[in-house]
Amino acid sequence: MSIVLILIDVQQGLDDPAWSRWNNPSADAHIAELLEAFRQRGLPVIHVRHDSKEAASTLRPGQPGHAFKPYAEPRPDEWIVPKQGTSAFAGTDLEARLRSKGFDTLVMAGFSTPFAVGCTARWAGDLGFRVLLAHDACAAFAHGGLEPGVLHASELAVLAKEFASITTTAQLLETLP
Amino acid sequence: MSIVLILIDVQQGLDDPAWSRWNNPSADAHIAELLEAFRQRGLPVIHVRHDSKEAASTLRPGQPGHAFKPYAEPRPDEWIVPKQGTSAFAGTDLEARLRSKGFDTLVMAGFSTPFAVGCTARWAGDLGFRVLLAHDACAAFAHGGLEPGVLHASELAVLAKEFASITTTAQLLETLP
Repeated sequence: MSIVLILIDVQQGLDDPAWSRWNNPSADAHIAELLEAFRQRGLPVIHVRHDSKEAASTLRPGQPGHAFKPYAEPRPDEWIVPKQGTSAFAGTDLEARLRSKGFDTLVMAGFSTPFAVGCTARWAGDLGFRVLLAHDACAAFAHGGLEPGVLHASELAVLAKEFASITTTAQLLETLP
Repeated sequence: MSIVLILIDVQQGLDDPAWSRWNNPSADAHIAELLEAFRQRGLPVIHVRHDSKEAASTLRPGQPGHAFKPYAEPRPDEWIVPKQGTSAFAGTDLEARLRSKGFDTLVMAGFSTPFAVGCTARWAGDLGFRVLLAHDACAAFAHGGLEPGVLHASELAVLAKEFASITTTAQLLETLP
């Protein structure tokens, strides 16, 4: 098993009220725990960053919200994968990078559960990677008349059936090499 | 606009009780309407077929359920895209085929909403295709303790925000060239 942590869109702009209500208020704390655990063990970390092309997006390069959240600031030796699509595999070299290093097990965390995290996990599963996702280290925002908890739970149910092992952060930390 | 109808996993094995309860019992009738409308207009049709590798799957080649539903039997001039992943783009030549013909607008219908249909629509949107999805020409099955209607609605809400225009079959038929 060659494992890597992939943090997805852990950027300040998601705290803007423009993003509606979120579930899982402890997601940031759990993401920080995962990051700290990987760093302490010398395990690799990848930071996926959304470079929105939409003029009004809080995640557009040049906006203050484009920056990583302070607790998730990449270290110089950690990869940054910029993306403009929703999945971190769309239009990026993420797959090639993972294959070149022989990574087969991807621990994912970040925002939001049904969009960037879910799309990346589905794509990764379809590419043959093993995906581990802590349900308390990701979160969803209310959208389309649906509560964030409903969107979060629906995405996790889909991921659990075909694409990912769903765990808690605590369970994940216990299994790290 | 160069439009194509992509029917996804419209296979007999999905009617097996092994697949739990489905929402949208009229999905088959609406898929048949779309197929008939495309054929009457001489518009292209692609049939995505799931070739499951799982021994117990009703969609495994060799099982009777692997066959297309009778109303969706491909004609000799229509493409069949076999897949083993969930998204119709994973491990197939679908993207290359669409690009080679210049198709930019993909009308999708089939089963199930949050799995093969949703994964294919998300991937297509991230690749830059325009996706049109009739919410009454796809359906979800109960899974993970969630009702099929909840999984269906959650997936459509995600698709509507970033990946697809969600319509009814009737609305779609009115806009066909």
